[in-house]
Amino acid sequence: MHPLSDATHHPQLRSWVVSANLPDSDFPVQNLPLGRFKPRTQQGQAEQPWRVGVAIGDEVLDLALAAHQCPWPDDVVDLLKPLAHGDLAAHLAQGPTAWRRLRQALSVALSEGSVEGPFLELCLRPQKLVLMSLPCVPRDYTDFYAGIHHATTVGKLMRPDNPLLPNYKWLPIGYHGRASSVGLGGPVRRPCGQVKVSADTPPIYAPTRRLDYELELGLWVGVGNPQGSNLDMAAAEDNLYGVTLLNDWSARDMQSWEYQPLGPFLAKSFATSVSPWLVSMDALAPFRRPCVRPEGDPKPLPYLDSSFNRAHGAIDITLQVWLLTPRMRELGHKPVKLSQSNALDAYWSPAQLLAHHASNGCNMATGDLLGTGTLSGPMPEQGGSLLELSQGGRQPLVLGAETRTFLEDGDTVILRAFCEAPGTARIGLGQVAGTVLPAAVFV
Amino acid sequence: MHPLSDATHHPQLRSWVVSANLPDSDFPVQNLPLGRFKPRTQQGQAEQPWRVGVAIGDEVLDLALAAHQCPWPDDVVDLLKPLAHGDLAAHLAQGPTAWRRLRQALSVALSEGSVEGPFLELCLRPQKLVLMSLPCVPRDYTDFYAGIHHATTVGKLMRPDNPLLPNYKWLPIGYHGRASSVGLGGPVRRPCGQVKVSADTPPIYAPTRRLDYELELGLWVGVGNPQGSNLDMAAAEDNLYGVTLLNDWSARDMQSWEYQPLGPFLAKSFATSVSPWLVSMDALAPFRRPCVRPEGDPKPLPYLDSSFNRAHGAIDITLQVWLLTPRMRELGHKPVKLSQSNALDAYWSPAQLLAHHASNGCNMATGDLLGTGTLSGPMPEQGGSLLELSQGGRQPLVLGAETRTFLEDGDTVILRAFCEAPGTARIGLGQVAGTVLPAAVFV
Repeated sequence: MHPLSDATHHPQLRSWVVSANLPDSDFPVQNLPLGRFKPRTQQGQAEQPWRVGVAIGDEVLDLALAAHQCPWPDDVVDLLKPLAHGDLAAHLAQGPTAWRRLRQALSVALSEGSVEGPFLELCLRPQKLVLMSLPCVPRDYTDFYAGIHHATTVGKLMRPDNPLLPNYKWLPIGYHGRASSVGLGGPVRRPCGQVKVSADTPPIYAPTRRLDYELELGLWVGVGNPQGSNLDMAAAEDNLYGVTLLNDWSARDMQSWEYQPLGPFLAKSFATSVSPWLVSMDALAPFRRPCVRPEGDPKPLPYLDSSFNRAHGAIDITLQVWLLTPRMRELGHKPVKLSQSNALDAYWSPAQLLAHHASNGCNMATGDLLGTGTLSGPMPEQGGSLLELSQGGRQPLVLGAETRTFLEDGDTVILRAFCEAPGTARIGLGQVAGTVLPAAVFV
Repeated sequence: MHPLSDATHHPQLRSWVVSANLPDSDFPVQNLPLGRFKPRTQQGQAEQPWRVGVAIGDEVLDLALAAHQCPWPDDVVDLLKPLAHGDLAAHLAQGPTAWRRLRQALSVALSEGSVEGPFLELCLRPQKLVLMSLPCVPRDYTDFYAGIHHATTVGKLMRPDNPLLPNYKWLPIGYHGRASSVGLGGPVRRPCGQVKVSADTPPIYAPTRRLDYELELGLWVGVGNPQGSNLDMAAAEDNLYGVTLLNDWSARDMQSWEYQPLGPFLAKSFATSVSPWLVSMDALAPFRRPCVRPEGDPKPLPYLDSSFNRAHGAIDITLQVWLLTPRMRELGHKPVKLSQSNALDAYWSPAQLLAHHASNGCNMATGDLLGTGTLSGPMPEQGGSLLELSQGGRQPLVLGAETRTFLEDGDTVILRAFCEAPGTARIGLGQVAGTVLPAAVFV
C-alpha cells in the first residue's frame, strides 16, 4: 500500500456501476472526479443551468438529484448543499477536510453492495448525453514552465550553448495568462497576429503558420490566501484541489516576434483548453512520488522545500498527445499517438508552484488555474509540443502518408492522461480534444 | 472648439454644486466620472452594498437616490436602473450610445439652473465621508509598455547600445497581469521574493530592497468581443469606456532575477493600485490629439491604423508623481513632486492597445483593465518610476534632507492627473495614493 492511500483507493473496490469496473475505465470508484454538466437540450427546449456531477465509469452521478434521493449522513447533507445548486467552487472553497469527507461518502455509496446504490441508480446519466463545462470559472490563470526537458529543448533552439537560464533551478518560472479565453476542448480558431516572415521584410498581420499545442496539467486552487499573506509548503499542499489536462495552444511565429522583453502574450491568449473532470489530489494519493533533483542541482530554498514534498511532492501521471487529421478522419482511421511523457518530468512540484506564486503576497483564489508548463520527456520523441517534435519546424513528423511541422486546419489534438502503478487501481484524467478551425478573415 | 467637443464640454458650463466650479477642481460638470462608493459605517453598523455615484466637485451624486428623487426622461430612467442597483459594469456593457445619453442627462441635471437641481441636492454626499471601491472588478488585467521613453531608458540600463528591441515600433508590447491583486490605493505591503543579491552568491528569499512605483493610466473596457472575433480600430475606439490612474508597483530586484524568459511575474503581482473615479473617453474628448510618429518610424500596420486615430488617437493628460515620506509627514510637510509627464508620451494610443489585444481573437470583457505601461517624459527628470529617476539605483534622488533610490517603508506614493487646454474646462482624474507597509515576516 502506498503510504498516502486510504480505503477509498483500495484496488479491490468495485462499483455497482458496471462500466466503472472495466480495466481501461478512467473513472473507477477510486477516482470520483467532479465536473459541471447539463443535459443536451433538444431544439426549442429551455437552457438549463450547470449541475455538478461525479464521473463514474461511463456515467455521471447527478449531485443535484443524489442530494435528495439518498439518505446521507447529516454532515454529508451539508457538504452536498452547494453541489446540489451547481456551485462546485463553493465546495472547493471548503478545504481538504470537506473534500475528503465527501470523497469517502461517495466512495462508500458508489461501491458494490452499498445501501445507497438503489437510490443513486436513479441519479445517473450517460456521459455521452451531457454537455460539460469548465469545472469552475478561473478567476486568474497562470502558466508555469516546470517541464525541464521542454525548457531545455526550447532553450536549445534559441541558445544552443546555454539552454537553461541561471534562474531555472532556483525558482519556478511562470507568467500570468489570460483567464477569459480558458475553455473546455472544442473548436479553436487559428489566430491572426503579427508575424515576421523573414528578417529582411516588415512584419505582416496574418493567420499564424506555426500553430502548436502544449501538453500540460492544469492545477486548480481550492482554498486561496488573502493579499499580503503567503502559503507555506504545507498550506500549498493542502490548498490545491486537483488537476485536469491543459492544452496551452501556441502560435510560435507570433510568439517569437512579440515575446521580448515581457514574455508570451497574444501567441497564447487566443485559447487555452482544459479537460472537464477535476481529479482531486486525494484521488492521486497512491501515485505521489518523491520529488528528486539530479545530483549537484541546488537544494530548493526553504520556502519551496518540505520533507513531505521531498518524499511525496511529485505525481506519476502518464501523459499522451494524439492527433487526428482530416485525412485520417476521412479514411476512418483512429488518432495516432504523437508523444508520451509523465508528470514526473516536472522539475517543480504542484505545491512548489503554488507556494512560489503566493510567496510575494499575491492573493490566490478558489478556482485559480495554474498550468504546469509543457511536460516533455527526456527523449526527443517525448516532446510535448510540435515545436519540439519537429525541431523548430525543421524536421517534419511523418504520420503515415502525411507529414506535419505545425498544426493544419481540421487537425484534432487530443490530450490524455492516466495513472497506473502495481497494486493500485488505474485512474484517468479523461481527455481534452480540440479541432483547428480556419482563420477568420479579419482585415 | 475642439472638433470632438459637444455641449457637455462647454467651458462656460457651471454647476449648482459650488465646489465643482472652483478652478482647481478635478470634477467640474464637464467631467462627471463614475465610481462605486458606500457611506463609512460606524462601529456596529451593518455593511452596506456598493453604490454607484458621480463625482461632482467635492461631492458624490448617489445614483441610487438620484434615480428615484428626480423626474428623468424615460430613456434615462432605463439607463439609471443598473446604476441604481450598484452595477456599474452593466452600464459599461451597454455601449457608447448609452454612455453619451447618460452623460448628457447628468450634464444638464448638474448644471446651474437645472430643473433637476432641487431634487438632486438631496442625493449628494461629501466625498470625504464615503469609502470608494474599484469602479468594477476587472475580469482580466493586461499591462502594456506603450511609454516609449520608459522603454528606452529601461532598455538602456540593460542594453546600452540597443535600448529598443526591433518589435517595439511594430506592435504594442504587453503582458497579462494579475487581476486578483488589483485594488484601490491604500497600504501596500512590501513583498518578499527571490532576489539575487550578488552574482557570486545563491539567491535568497527576502523582502525586496528595490520597491518601485510605475506611473500609468488604466484603460477600462466597456464592451468586449466574443472569442475568435476581433475589434477593428473603430470598434476599439467605441468599446473603451474610460481611464483611471494606475500604479504598477514593482519589485525591481525580484523582477531582474525572475523575468527571463517569460516576463515579469511576482515582481508585479503583489499589488496594482488604481484611482477610484472612472473618467470617460467622452469627458476626455476635448483633449484628444493627433497620434504622431517621429519621421522615419514605420507606419502602423492596417489593423492598428485609422484616420480617426491619426487625427485624434492620443490624449493630452498631464501626469504627476508625488511622494510623502514619514519624515515629511512628521514635520508636517506636504508631498514633493517627483516627476511630471504626459499621456502623449505613449507611442501607442488606447485604441491601438485594445485593437491589438483583440487582434488574435482574444475575448475582451466589460471591466477588463489595460495598463498603458509607464508614461515617462523624454527628459531624465520625467521618469515615471524610481528605476528611471535614480538611474537604476545608482543616483539617489535628493529630497530636501533625505534621499531615495527606491521606496522605503512608510513612503506614500501619490499619482495625480489632469487635463488642461486653452478654451476648455480643466478636468482631473483625481489621485491614487498608496503607503508602503513593512514586509511581513513569512519564513
